[in-house]
Amino acid sequence: MAKQFVYPFTFGDKSKSDLLGGKGANIAEMVQMGLPVPPGFTITTDACREFLTTGNIPTQLSGQVDIALANLEKVVGKKFGDAKNPLLVSVRSGAKHSMPGMMETVLNVGITPEVAEAMAIASGNEKFAWDSYRRFIDMYGRIVCEVPDESVHELESEYLQKHNAAVVADLTAPALKDLAAQLIKLIESHTERTFPTNPVDHLNHSIEAVFRSWNSERANLYRKRERIPSDLGTAVNIQSMVFGNLSDDSGTGVAFTRNPATGETGSYGDYLDKAQGEDVVAGIRNTMSLVDMAKKEPVVHAELERLMKTLEDHYRDLCDIEFTVERGKLWILQTRVGKRTAEAAFRIATQLVDEGKISMDEALTRTNGEQLVQLMFPQFDLSQKQNLIATGIPASPGAAVGEVVFNSKKAFDLAKAGRKVILVRRETSPDDLVGMVAAEGILTTRGGKTSHAAVVARGMGKTAVCGTEAINVDEKLLQFNIGDLIIKEGEIISIDGTTGCVYLGEIAVTQSTVTSYLEGKVKVDSDQATPIVKAVDRILNHADEIRKLFVRANADTPEDSQRARTLGAQGIGLCRTEHMFLGERRSYVEQVVLAESEEDQNKIIAQMQVLQQADFVGILKAMSGLPVTVRLLDPPLHEFLPDLASLSAQMATAEALNKEVSTRDKAIFTAVKRLHEANPMLGLRGVRLGILIPELFKMQVRALVLASIEVKKAGFDPRPELMIPLVTTQRELLYLRENLELEIVKTLGNEKLDIPIGTMIETPRAAITATRLADYADFFSFGTNDLTQLTWAFSRDDVESTFLPRYLDLELLPFNPFESLDQDGVGLLVKIARDQARAVRKDFKLGICGEHGGDPRSIHFFNNLGIDYVSCSPFRVPVARLEAGRAQIIKS
Amino acid sequence: MAKQFVYPFTFGDKSKSDLLGGKGANIAEMVQMGLPVPPGFTITTDACREFLTTGNIPTQLSGQVDIALANLEKVVGKKFGDAKNPLLVSVRSGAKHSMPGMMETVLNVGITPEVAEAMAIASGNEKFAWDSYRRFIDMYGRIVCEVPDESVHELESEYLQKHNAAVVADLTAPALKDLAAQLIKLIESHTERTFPTNPVDHLNHSIEAVFRSWNSERANLYRKRERIPSDLGTAVNIQSMVFGNLSDDSGTGVAFTRNPATGETGSYGDYLDKAQGEDVVAGIRNTMSLVDMAKKEPVVHAELERLMKTLEDHYRDLCDIEFTVERGKLWILQTRVGKRTAEAAFRIATQLVDEGKISMDEALTRTNGEQLVQLMFPQFDLSQKQNLIATGIPASPGAAVGEVVFNSKKAFDLAKAGRKVILVRRETSPDDLVGMVAAEGILTTRGGKTSHAAVVARGMGKTAVCGTEAINVDEKLLQFNIGDLIIKEGEIISIDGTTGCVYLGEIAVTQSTVTSYLEGKVKVDSDQATPIVKAVDRILNHADEIRKLFVRANADTPEDSQRARTLGAQGIGLCRTEHMFLGERRSYVEQVVLAESEEDQNKIIAQMQVLQQADFVGILKAMSGLPVTVRLLDPPLHEFLPDLASLSAQMATAEALNKEVSTRDKAIFTAVKRLHEANPMLGLRGVRLGILIPELFKMQVRALVLASIEVKKAGFDPRPELMIPLVTTQRELLYLRENLELEIVKTLGNEKLDIPIGTMIETPRAAITATRLADYADFFSFGTNDLTQLTWAFSRDDVESTFLPRYLDLELLPFNPFESLDQDGVGLLVKIARDQARAVRKDFKLGICGEHGGDPRSIHFFNNLGIDYVSCSPFRVPVARLEAGRAQIIKS
Repeated sequence: MAKQFVYPFTFGDKSKSDLLGGKGANIAEMVQMGLPVPPGFTITTDACREFLTTGNIPTQLSGQVDIALANLEKVVGKKFGDAKNPLLVSVRSGAKHSMPGMMETVLNVGITPEVAEAMAIASGNEKFAWDSYRRFIDMYGRIVCEVPDESVHELESEYLQKHNAAVVADLTAPALKDLAAQLIKLIESHTERTFPTNPVDHLNHSIEAVFRSWNSERANLYRKRERIPSDLGTAVNIQSMVFGNLSDDSGTGVAFTRNPATGETGSYGDYLDKAQGEDVVAGIRNTMSLVDMAKKEPVVHAELERLMKTLEDHYRDLCDIEFTVERGKLWILQTRVGKRTAEAAFRIATQLVDEGKISMDEALTRTNGEQLVQLMFPQFDLSQKQNLIATGIPASPGAAVGEVVFNSKKAFDLAKAGRKVILVRRETSPDDLVGMVAAEGILTTRGGKTSHAAVVARGMGKTAVCGTEAINVDEKLLQFNIGDLIIKEGEIISIDGTTGCVYLGEIAVTQSTVTSYLEGKVKVDSDQATPIVKAVDRILNHADEIRKLFVRANADTPEDSQRARTLGAQGIGLCRTEHMFLGERRSYVEQVVLAESEEDQNKIIAQMQVLQQADFVGILKAMSGLPVTVRLLDPPLHEFLPDLASLSAQMATAEALNKEVSTRDKAIFTAVKRLHEANPMLGLRGVRLGILIPELFKMQVRALVLASIEVKKAGFDPRPELMIPLVTTQRELLYLRENLELEIVKTLGNEKLDIPIGTMIETPRAAITATRLADYADFFSFGTNDLTQLTWAFSRDDVESTFLPRYLDLELLPFNPFESLDQDGVGLLVKIARDQARAVRKDFKLGICGEHGGDPRSIHFFNNLGIDYVSCSPFRVPVARLEAGRAQIIKS
Repeated sequence: MAKQFVYPFTFGDKSKSDLLGGKGANIAEMVQMGLPVPPGFTITTDACREFLTTGNIPTQLSGQVDIALANLEKVVGKKFGDAKNPLLVSVRSGAKHSMPGMMETVLNVGITPEVAEAMAIASGNEKFAWDSYRRFIDMYGRIVCEVPDESVHELESEYLQKHNAAVVADLTAPALKDLAAQLIKLIESHTERTFPTNPVDHLNHSIEAVFRSWNSERANLYRKRERIPSDLGTAVNIQSMVFGNLSDDSGTGVAFTRNPATGETGSYGDYLDKAQGEDVVAGIRNTMSLVDMAKKEPVVHAELERLMKTLEDHYRDLCDIEFTVERGKLWILQTRVGKRTAEAAFRIATQLVDEGKISMDEALTRTNGEQLVQLMFPQFDLSQKQNLIATGIPASPGAAVGEVVFNSKKAFDLAKAGRKVILVRRETSPDDLVGMVAAEGILTTRGGKTSHAAVVARGMGKTAVCGTEAINVDEKLLQFNIGDLIIKEGEIISIDGTTGCVYLGEIAVTQSTVTSYLEGKVKVDSDQATPIVKAVDRILNHADEIRKLFVRANADTPEDSQRARTLGAQGIGLCRTEHMFLGERRSYVEQVVLAESEEDQNKIIAQMQVLQQADFVGILKAMSGLPVTVRLLDPPLHEFLPDLASLSAQMATAEALNKEVSTRDKAIFTAVKRLHEANPMLGLRGVRLGILIPELFKMQVRALVLASIEVKKAGFDPRPELMIPLVTTQRELLYLRENLELEIVKTLGNEKLDIPIGTMIETPRAAITATRLADYADFFSFGTNDLTQLTWAFSRDDVESTFLPRYLDLELLPFNPFESLDQDGVGLLVKIARDQARAVRKDFKLGICGEHGGDPRSIHFFNNLGIDYVSCSPFRVPVARLEAGRAQIIKS
């Protein structure tokens, strides 16, 4: 039996997005709900996948499309390609995961000059008919025949000039007809073929073009960023056309059931009369708000509001709708659960809880850690003097500062060179994606909150200000002007995506209110608490209530510890003691290395103990009552000394110039050469250092014990833990543990204090032989950074600047394994170690102290493994709390 | 119930060495056989282990010893400590694994002045009685009371001088008695305690001293070298004394059932009349051969020969016997399967086959790869003029050249500094072990083939010449003389352990006949084939017949390939293509790195192709009909460039001196800086290089394909295989495989050639996700060097010079994991990958190309895992063949 590739909209529902794509599934859902959706049918993602694999349209497809088209003709009572009673259709992409603006759409398929003539007569609107025809030729040329956008624009510009018109919509019917004819010539010269006249060919070619657009460069880039698998393919929706450009009481729009930028209640959107959908999204003409639409079309608007409420109640979430009004009749073309800003996500989620539509658990899953991060980003400090030069539409929140750049390629190049840029464009197109990713923020002169620039920027969490009409961009002179004020490329501007303000020069930034709240500076019950603060508070509290995973912080100073605790850290999972010997204190390590006898060495180590003890006192006080896991010295000693190459150059210079070199410098040079390692990552560090220079670790243990005693006497509750880095064998752990315990007992004297001793699991060997380590460790802490380096043979310091970018480009890696845990490889090692440890003791304590501890995807993985805690940087603590809560719901 | 720690000799047999130690088990076996063994009992290794763990003698032991002693008294009809009819016993160590000379023995326990008086009367030999007493005090003092040897020797020397005697045996009975009294005073002043008078105390203290000697420094060192676990403990054998020093027709000796040095048939040994056992082993007096003994004691000698035959027939192997003759009555004190040289091992094994005593399988297990290696060592080239200055006893074969050194410490120090030394000693003691390990060879002036020096040297495979009586050593003047000829410390001598010749100056060395045979230069059926060649030939052929594991070689040149093939390699398992770009050819890689455009780069790569192709032609010809696995370029490019530090110094010097630096040098400096990696081992190399510079790998593929075509046309049978290094993910492998296959097809044109493409498994990730790689790989080759580095986080280049020695010293590591595979860790990864690969395809081909492929222990492990082949350096190929055969028997 032939595979079924085509389904009418009356089949399926929103659960079928695998097969029908998101758009097709939601259309089917709306049809089930009885909403006014123009009839049509969907070509499945299976068909696209077959096309992508074989390079050919499946043979059965064309026949199935013919049948579906015939059925559609019956339903709407029109005939495709028929001059008298023509059926026109749109051909739209629609993948499982929404990829707004990334793939292609062809409208008005089925139109021919004969059909246009007939439409002109039937509608009594000649201009509408030829505009529809012109639009089809335009889209067919660019999308199906791949005529470059620039050529089309050039032709149109010439034409507008010739006819003394500002925009194409101003042209007369004959001019539009003529423009279409010119476009056909352009297409024919580009393709070197006669333009096809059969509408069935137009349809089939359009379907193939949509399939093909799955693999466009921008679609690939988008998927990579959003981690959407590249082999899903898109469905294609063939929908009978309704015409927003038919008459004065026609129009088209995009609407949201709540404000997708702020989360405020009340419907929200843009409406454009006498227009087709593409006009709204492209931001070519400025739109009217729904409030203005209500004035112009009160009846249709009321119907729209009613349908939107129906949809939101049904979806129990913010809905995003595309609609068209044809001669006063409202049609819903498509809907989906709307994308929203981070702020909107939190606010809408709690609103829906208050409205009794969803539970707190569900509200939690409607937000995520990355959104919380966005809310924590700083904002402009407007207490300082600023030079406001324009105001646009606040399209995507945040504060961005950078130099003005007018094209995406340049934005990309400069950003690559480490410069901060603001991409300034009249309007953005999907081709600008590269520049938008690279820029700090985006500023456009046209389009509203639903324009391409706005939608894409919000999705990325990138600051954007749109529709700043006061600004005139001159791309040739590489400048923009606001009246007399001229801003050249390279000048610094600051844009505020929350207010829409554009400032000349750099503006200092201040913390977000969410961050102020998270840091305890703003109380949730105070006047300063904004709606978003209240929403975050509720969601985060709920996450804390239900999560099983503890969240600790990586912190090495009393200040960081205090901050981490305020941000909700339940202890310190990783206190890197080597950080206490950087800066001025480097000289101590230098002296240890240069010491001529063990006695001298021990003297210096004794001095280090005093400093270390003071650090520990501050940290233990800040974390009173919570565990503080101190990692013994980890990095190779030469990390504290000057670099070999620069020292070699220095010594060579001195020698060449016959300059005296001090004995100390000579000694340092000798030491640096002696300690130099080919691969320090795999060398003398961690536990190995502690075994080679026992006094180092002993000193650290003494400092910790003495600090604990001091803190305890001051009335605090110190909970120190010791962690041994880079262990590979049981004997190593046992040997060191015995020595450390001895030192603890000796230092404690008559005092009592329990100091658990654990080991890091950061070598593959430790992971796969964890059974043997578990007997002698009170806990394991997975150092997933090193574990990733070793499992992959990836030196983090090296690969990110050499081959990793290329690997990501070629999709040889789905993501950077240092950012998100490689669950199949490194994750498997964690799982093996967990199984072994828990076989030794059912409640064996397991923690994560690599940077993955703050990564949402990784947190879910760790939660599902039953890890006890993650430890991450203080700023990521709220994110980890939130995600740990979400993980608890999503897994169940 | 109390644990039984004591068993009479009538209990057990040779299988009980775990419990009774080797010596105790063999004594029990001889008792079962009805051989004349002085009765006694054995204290088990359990007792020693308890002592080692708790630090105390088990409480039950003393009571059990009392009972056993009472039973012994009944059996021999004498009484311990009784002046009238005294029972004297020896207290001897005896661990499971023979550790000759490493632990302690106390003889004549039970003797007191009263007993000695009684013995003098009963034996009519006053001197014998007091000599026995003196011996006891001497040993008790040194071993139990830990009086330094030097103090004892000093006292004895003074005493000999005073009495004008050469050796202690020359002293009169009263003098011996007096000497004993002096020794007691020395002991008392050392211990600051009164010397105990109760023989039961002597016995118990002696037992404890033997236990203690398990942990002596030399015993630990020996165990480490021989990889004997350090927690086994030793048994203690309490045996009733028989006296070789009783009369003229008394004596003691050591005998072998065959020659342990050459393997020649016929009994072999040393006999010393009027002596106790220690005198023979210590080499203090020169011994007589068994032939001479036959003349002196024909009856006893005949009995000895009879018993030796009985023993060898029973053990079906070379036996090593200690015997004592007491007034014409032969007693066997102990026996064991004798240690032997490599040559003897092969020859005896084949002799026993010919005698119908063992099978070829068993003969194979009686030899091993390390012995074969010893036989492959070079020998002196005696065709040159040489200056023979003395001849000693050829005690351990081989040829050694080095500077004369007279003490072990110095030998150790010089060897550490890279110098080659010959340790020259009157006689060696266990304390010389450090120096013996360090020296190239050992030369002694006293002692025979069973002396300490000889036994230990043979065990180590170290060249030794013993009993070179013409030589007089003057340790004070740091010189030795042979008549008028004076050789000072630091002069070069050459010693031949096969002939016993000592030469002044350096003598060139030639290959061993075994190596000549293995390399096909000596045919086994020719006149040149020595007995050892014939024995090796038979054993190796048998190994080849039964082994399942294929042995390939690591070879990168036509010469090495040819040599490997002659040595029995069944192909090349690892052809390192980067080795073809060292030396003069470095400049090509330099040019690739410096190329300004991809075009320029490709031009140079094309030049490299010509060279590479020529190399491949030679290798494929040499290996016609056998697989040649070519590994694509693996190391980071900067390995071909100058070192960053030295280049920095060079540039700094030039700058300081205002010297012109060529553009090229500047470019190289820039490139070296750009390519510098913090951890190159984990950086841009292997498959990553091939993906970043695709032309490099493509060039290598073209070179291999073109070479194969050329070789095929010349009538050979090329069997190339391609291997991709450092793969971590399936996508990586798939991507590269597709590209390489395309290049193969393109290059082949109309030619036909099958080139399997495999991947190395050398990252932990590759190992644990092998399932996914197996689908796209024709074979796996485990790069166990890198896999060890990554699994352990051990950079081989670094750790062996930093912490690894310390780890081995502290026994934190049982052995260097780069020498012998870490079976628990790295081995587990190999096992996981094997399981995954074989689940994908039952016959999935698996090879080993790390250096572990030539290590016997590792080979057994790989064989048991069902690996298809190992690949090792050409010289190790015969070793691997032998061990692969042995592994097949030992596992079954």
